[in-house]
Parts: sequence; C-alpha cells; structure tokens
Amino acid sequence: MNKKKIINDPVHGFIKIPNERIYDLIQHPHFQRLRRIRQLGLAEYVYPGALHTRFHHALGAMHLMSLALDTLRQKGFEISEAEMEAAQIAILLHDVGHGPLSHALEFILLKDIRHERLSQLIMQGLNQEFGGSLSMAIDIFMDVYPRRFLHQLVSSQLDMDRLDYLLRDSFFTGVMEGTIGADRIIKMLSLYQDELVIEEKGIYSVENFLTARRLMYWQVYLHKTNLSAEQMVIQILRRAAHLCAKAKR
Amino acid sequence: MNKKKIINDPVHGFIKIPNERIYDLIQHPHFQRLRRIRQLGLAEYVYPGALHTRFHHALGAMHLMSLALDTLRQKGFEISEAEMEAAQIAILLHDVGHGPLSHALEFILLKDIRHERLSQLIMQGLNQEFGGSLSMAIDIFMDVYPRRFLHQLVSSQLDMDRLDYLLRDSFFTGVMEGTIGADRIIKMLSLYQDELVIEEKGIYSVENFLTARRLMYWQVYLHKTNLSAEQMVIQILRRAAHLCAKAKR
Amino acid sequence: MNKKKIINDPVHGFIKIPNERIYDLIQHPHFQRLRRIRQLGLAEYVYPGALHTRFHHALGAMHLMSLALDTLRQKGFEISEAEMEAAQIAILLHDVGHGPLSHALEFILLKDIRHERLSQLIMQGLNQEFGGSLSMAIDIFMDVYPRRFLHQLVSSQLDMDRLDYLLRDSFFTGVMEGTIGADRIIKMLSLYQDELVIEEKGIYSVENFLTARRLMYWQVYLHKTNLSAEQMVIQILRRAAHLCAKAKR
Amino acid sequence: MNKKKIINDPVHGFIKIPNERIYDLIQHPHFQRLRRIRQLGLAEYVYPGALHTRFHHALGAMHLMSLALDTLRQKGFEISEAEMEAAQIAILLHDVGHGPLSHALEFILLKDIRHERLSQLIMQGLNQEFGGSLSMAIDIFMDVYPRRFLHQLVSSQLDMDRLDYLLRDSFFTGVMEGTIGADRIIKMLSLYQDELVIEEKGIYSVENFLTARRLMYWQVYLHKTNLSAEQMVIQILRRAAHLCAKAKR
Repeated sequence: MNKKKIINDPVHGFIKIPNERIYDLIQHPHFQRLRRIRQLGLAEYVYPGALHTRFHHALGAMHLMSLALDTLRQKGFEISEAEMEAAQIAILLHDVGHGPLSHALEFILLKDIRHERLSQLIMQGLNQEFGGSLSMAIDIFMDVYPRRFLHQLVSSQLDMDRLDYLLRDSFFTGVMEGTIGADRIIKMLSLYQDELVIEEKGIYSVENFLTARRLMYWQVYLHKTNLSAEQMVIQILRRAAHLCAKAKR
Repeated sequence: MNKKKIINDPVHGFIKIPNERIYDLIQHPHFQRLRRIRQLGLAEYVYPGALHTRFHHALGAMHLMSLALDTLRQKGFEISEAEMEAAQIAILLHDVGHGPLSHALEFILLKDIRHERLSQLIMQGLNQEFGGSLSMAIDIFMDVYPRRFLHQLVSSQLDMDRLDYLLRDSFFTGVMEGTIGADRIIKMLSLYQDELVIEEKGIYSVENFLTARRLMYWQVYLHKTNLSAEQMVIQILRRAAHLCAKAKR
Repeated sequence: MNKKKIINDPVHGFIKIPNERIYDLIQHPHFQRLRRIRQLGLAEYVYPGALHTRFHHALGAMHLMSLALDTLRQKGFEISEAEMEAAQIAILLHDVGHGPLSHALEFILLKDIRHERLSQLIMQGLNQEFGGSLSMAIDIFMDVYPRRFLHQLVSSQLDMDRLDYLLRDSFFTGVMEGTIGADRIIKMLSLYQDELVIEEKGIYSVENFLTARRLMYWQVYLHKTNLSAEQMVIQILRRAAHLCAKAKR
Repeated sequence: MNKKKIINDPVHGFIKIPNERIYDLIQHPHFQRLRRIRQLGLAEYVYPGALHTRFHHALGAMHLMSLALDTLRQKGFEISEAEMEAAQIAILLHDVGHGPLSHALEFILLKDIRHERLSQLIMQGLNQEFGGSLSMAIDIFMDVYPRRFLHQLVSSQLDMDRLDYLLRDSFFTGVMEGTIGADRIIKMLSLYQDELVIEEKGIYSVENFLTARRLMYWQVYLHKTNLSAEQMVIQILRRAAHLCAKAKR
C-alpha cells in the first residue's frame, strides 16, 4: 500500500506525509481522535468558518517543520534523517493530549493535569506500540534532546505550532489581521550554537507576527461571545458534576 | 438590540444581515440546526478542511443574492424592497430541510420525501410563526411568483446556490480547480422579459463555471473515499433499521 | 457609446466606472499620463512585480471611496449624488500632478512646487474643460467644502488613498506584511459631527493598518536598494542640469 | 558577496537563486534587458495590472522547474546536480531572445528570424562568456540532450513556461478564469522511459489547465482591444519603415 500520501490543505497547498511510520501514526486512533476536536472550540459561534480541527493543525505544523528543517539544511546545518523524522513526529503529536473545547475547560475536567502532560503520556504509549521508534521525538518534545533548536521549533516564542495556528485560524475565521508571512519567517530561520535564531532581515516579519498574534487574541481567542459560550459550557459541566456526585451518594 | 450584524466569512469577506426579520430567521432553531449539518458530508475524510456547514453556505448564498439583485438594479431593472427581501429569504431557507450527511442518505431515512419538500414544509411553518411575512419568499421558492428570474436566482443552472457552494467547497477543500469568477458572473447577469440571462461578455466565465463544477464532481463530490464512506453509513443505517424492526416483532 | 465600463483589478476584483463624466476624466490625457508613472518608482529593482502605476492606484482609491460612501449611506448618513461624485473625482485626481519617480525627485525638478500644488492646478484646468463640473471635487480636495469627512476620506491619517496603496503595494511586491483588512476598516467607518470616525470594534483593524504601514516603510519604501537607486537618479539629473547650464553659457 | 538571494514574488511567494552561476546570468545585461519587455505587450490597455515582464516570468519558470525536478527526485528518479542546473538555466533563458511587444511584431522587425532562434544565439554567446558552462543547458533547450523530459519541462504541451505564464498572467490581470492548480500538476509529474508523464490522479488538474489556457486566450491574449492596439503599432512601424526607406533613396 502506498503510504506516501499527499493531503490537500487550503492553507499550505499540499501536505506530504513523509514516510510510512508517520503515516501509521496519523492513522492511529489516538491521532484520528483529533479530527473531532476543534482548534478554536466555540469560536464558531462568532466565526462560522472556524470549524477546523487539531488534526488539521497538527498536519500543518508538521508541514511547516519540514520546510523549516529544509531551510536550515540548505544553509549548511547538518540535520540527520533521524532528527528530521523525530522533529516532525514531535510536532505532529504535540497536541495529541488535547481534550475537547478550550484550555479553560481542561481545568474543570482534569484539575491537576495539563494537556502537555497528557500528550507526553500518549506519546509514551505510542512509543511502546511503535517499538521505541518515537524515543527521539519524545526527547525533543521534553526538551532533553541535546540539540535545543529542535525543541524550539516545536515549542518556543516562534515555533511551527504558532506559525501554523495563526495562519490557519486567520484563514478559517476570515480575520485578515492575523495574516503573517510564515514563508518569510521560515526562510529567515538560522542556528547559532544549535539554538534557533532569526536573520536580521527577518525582523519585520517577526514584528508582524507578534502584532498579528495579539490582534488574533483580541479579535478571536478572547472575543466576548467566545468566552461567554465557554463559560456557559464550564458552568453546565460543573452543574452536571455536582448532580452526578449527589446522585451517587 | 442591534440586529444589523456583519459576519466574517473567509469566502466572501463580510456578510451583512440586511434587516431584523432575516436576523430573526437566522436565529430560529430551524436555521441554527444547519450549523450541525456539513455541506460536504463525509468528504472531510479526504479533505480535512471540508468541515463547513449548510448554515455557512446559506448565509453565503444570501450574500450573493444581494449582490446579484444590486447588479440588476444598477442596470435599471426595478426590484422592489419586498422582492429583494423575499429573494434573500428564499435562498437563505432553500436548504433548511436538509438532513445530515448526503443526498444519498435521505433516500434511506425518508424514502418518499425529498429535502426540497421538507424545506418547503419548514418554510410554511416559519411563515406562520412570522405572521405570513414569508409568503412571497415561498412563492419564489416554489416558482409561482410571476417574476421568474427571482426563482432562477434561487434554483436554476446558474443560481446563487451553485455559485456559493462551488466557491465555498473549493475554498475549504483547497481544490483550486473549483475556483470560479463568481463576481464576474454576477456582474454579467441581466434580465430579458423577466428571465435571467447573461451578457455575451460573460460567456467565458460561464464556461469556466461549468468546467469547474464538473471538476469538483470528479475530484470531490464523487471521490471514491467519499462515496465509500457514505455507502458504509448507509449500510450501517440499513442494518440498524433491520435490527430495530426485528426487535419490535 | 457605453461608458459604464468595468475594469478588472487583481486587488479589488472589479472597479466600476460610475458615470460618463468620470469616464471622460479617466480618458483625458492628463489622467492617462499616470499610466506611465509607477507607484513605487524604482522599487522594481528589489521587487520585480512592483510595476503598478498611479493610474491603477487612482482607480483603486476611487473604488474604495465608493465603498466607503455606500457604507456611510447605509448607516443613515445623507450623502447627495453630487457629493458622491465629487468625492470620487477628488480622490481620482488627488495624484494627477505626480511626476515620474519619487517624491524625492520632485524637489530636484521643481524646487518650490509640490505635487499637491500641481494636482490642484491640473484639476482647475480640467474644471474649465469640463464646464465647472469639478468645482465641488476641488473644494473637497482643498478642504474648503463644509462637510469635512469628504476631504478626510481623500486625505487624512486613514484615507482611501492609503488603504489602496498599502493593499496594492503589498499585492504587487508580494510583501505579506503589508496586508490590511481594508474591507473591515471601511465597514467600521462612521461620522460624528460630519467628521470621519471609526467604530470602536474597528480599533484592531486600525492598529493592524498602522503596523502594516510601518512595516511597508521599512521593507519596501525605505529599502536600501530602492533609496540608492533613487539617489543615483537624482545625482544623474543634477549632473545633467549642471552640464546643460554650462552648455548654455 | 552573497549571491544566494531570495526574491519576493507575489505569484510563488519566494524565488531562490540556486547558485552563483545563475546569479551571474541573471545579472547579465542580456537577461536584465527582459526587465523592459512586458509579458503581455499592450494588454495593459485592457488590464491595467498587466505590466509584468519577461524578466519576472523567466524567474518564475525557473522556480517551477526546481519544484518539478525536486518532485521527480523524490519519486526516485535520478537527476544529477549538473542536469538540475542546466534545466534551470535552459528555462531561465528560453525567452531571452524576445523582442518588445508581441509575437506578431517580431515578424515585422525581423522577417525571417523567430525569437527561439534569437534565444539560441544569445545563449551561445553567453556560453562563450561563461566558459562553456551552459552547454548542457543549450542541449536541453535544443532538444538534443538524451534525457528528453528535461526539454519537455522547458518546452512542451505542459511545460514550466506555460504553468508560470498562466498563473502570472491570471494574477496580474485579475482574470480568475486562468487560475490553475500548478502545485498539483507539478506534484503529479512523473517519468516513463525518461519522457514526462502525468500520474492518472492528475488528469483533472490537466483538464483544468487546458480549459484555463483557452479561456485566457479568449479573455486576454486575443482580446479585441489588445489585438487592435497591436495592429496599430504594427502599422505605425510599417509606415516608419516605408518612410525611412523613401528617405534613404
């Protein structure tokens, strides 16, 4: 079976699944579950197009990761095939522990466990199923891999996660103010002592990225209708938990 | 309360809700139900962005209707405010009877009733609730209103329904081949003896529309994975119906 | 002859020429001259797509003016047909006095005359040719028309000139960082005591506009190669003037 | 001096100059001359945005060539670095012999010499200047290089030249009907016995490409105003030639 699929993505054009292992990870129920988790929770009540899922976002972030690593290689930095794959797996799975709805909600459902911790646990489970082949990806995700830039591409102030979600959220909401020059930012990435840096010429693109991010917070993520809807769901769940607890007694 | 809302639509930019009655119709549970019905059913298994709903599509078609009627007015054709509103309501509600998943499915669930018939029944129910103010819209929808172009804008070979769904499906799937010049087609609309016609200069845009539509059928609507998923759901429902019938005996 | 032409504009889609007088103005050699004046002067040496002209920009600004005035009318502000046309003419001709290349250059060629003054003189000449029908447009341009918002739409911190050139320069250079939500800004325009204001909800779009403008200055308008090329042309012209003066003696 | 420049292209995003030799070719006056030759000749009288040059188009075609060859390599076909560079040079220079204005015009100016022949002569001249390093590129251009797919990517029914000019002409004119899925077509390229073929799944994209091309002929390349303007220039030149010949006698 041909597992080198190409997926149509209205945001990035085409996303290539780079190899069989990543194909199998994507097919795994733990990852397919993300098809039913919306990236923007209840924001669809304000922005009817905002139905895109964490599944789609994770594929997009993996795509940007491959562009970023290609750029670094072309600038002469050595990145092994194993590192390439591990970094792509790390970002593909970085959100695999996310529950439904919003960050706010997870505090209700699982009081003392953050989604990052869940992602980590799921990744470890998958690592067993995949015969230990995700170990380097987990090291990168946990920031214990010696080459720190790989973790920084997964999770930092300017990681591939943020580049993808800004572009994607802007695309599906139709909020133009979130448009960023992700291609340019990626082309400007470089390394200094194995830490991620940006070439001087990229500074305006980075500033634009920071402004765009803030505008998206104001116009989308913290939109009053979005937050109200979220609070209503939280109160409903609290009430349900209370009634269940009462019923049990 | 201000009901002249503007809705962000990544496809058309902004959609203006033209008046209070239409705002109230959009808020009605019958219409809000369409938020949970995807335009492309199970096509998301091939195109992960294809999660857009009939709710969103109906708003988009209403928007194109207002552009089309504005164009006709600017060309000197008289269209009353009442006709304007009725045509917008007719297209807003043209799919209100749609059930979940695909056209194919509705033959299983409701053997002898097509969704057009359901749309009509729901519109008549809404008309009662809204004090008879939807009568002209229903006449347009049923093609009994004397000025036939209004019905043709709702349902014909080149209606606002098709223009919106092609643009929208192309946008959310990322299938570029479905891109059409809807703006240009609308600008080329005209009337001859109250029937909808296209100015000669628009012929290439129309040809492009026809080709794009066919390509979307091949690449999206009739994609083998899409059809297979649909058949699986149909078989599941058939089996469920069979088991229920058996259990009842 | 049909003068109600529609012009394809890759930035705004379609630009409608609203009436015969404006069609005749566009056809006038004074305006057609702008076809040979590039909006971004020598920036094409950095951005090969940046060949767009002041002709195209003036049409685009006129288009945005008509959108802005339509929005204000829909919000209940009275704007007469005469004012509508005059404002469109004022912005169409606001740059008609521009010479080739850049602002910097005009100080060499015409030491004590700014292009605004030239635009005014040309408009007055056209007004004579057009039988005085541009008087209101000139009043708006000169800011002596009593309803000040009309001038503010032509020339202020947030005028249709700037909205169009940012969008257009961003489009033709490919510098994504200049993308602004012009549609949204226009939809948020309002009047208070006949002065132009922005609805509170539009504040993020305005902030994005201000940031985008600054980024365009840094990345495009003040790009070192652009400025160097300009300085070279200025020095060449100075030298030519010097040699001519010497030859005359 | 760093010659690995990146050029902003509003059509493709960023175009990377792959190496120093290609940088030097681009800087050569023979290539820079193309900055003053418009891709669409006089079509700007119909489409004011259509000012893009053969310079820009040649860079774009080179970019698509690199994408196409990368795709073929990823599918397991061996393409040497030398072939990669030669194919990029061949398409970069394929139009270097083009004169101003249109194909029609060249028959007036140079009755018996076609621009392909001029391109070839200029390439041979450049080859001498560049110490014979363009020989393989010239072989590919002349279709004498044994691996025929390289020539087919430069010049055939589905070459990178056409993909770029359709996309570019559609972008700068604003004629949506010319939009093609070039990314998808390139992703579907393959080889069979060293000839260029398309994977079966790409057939719809190819059909769309063919339709789009035809629509561009009708709406742009053969637009009556475009052809009329061209005929006027041809008659002017004929008359000028006649008067010159008379004056000489």
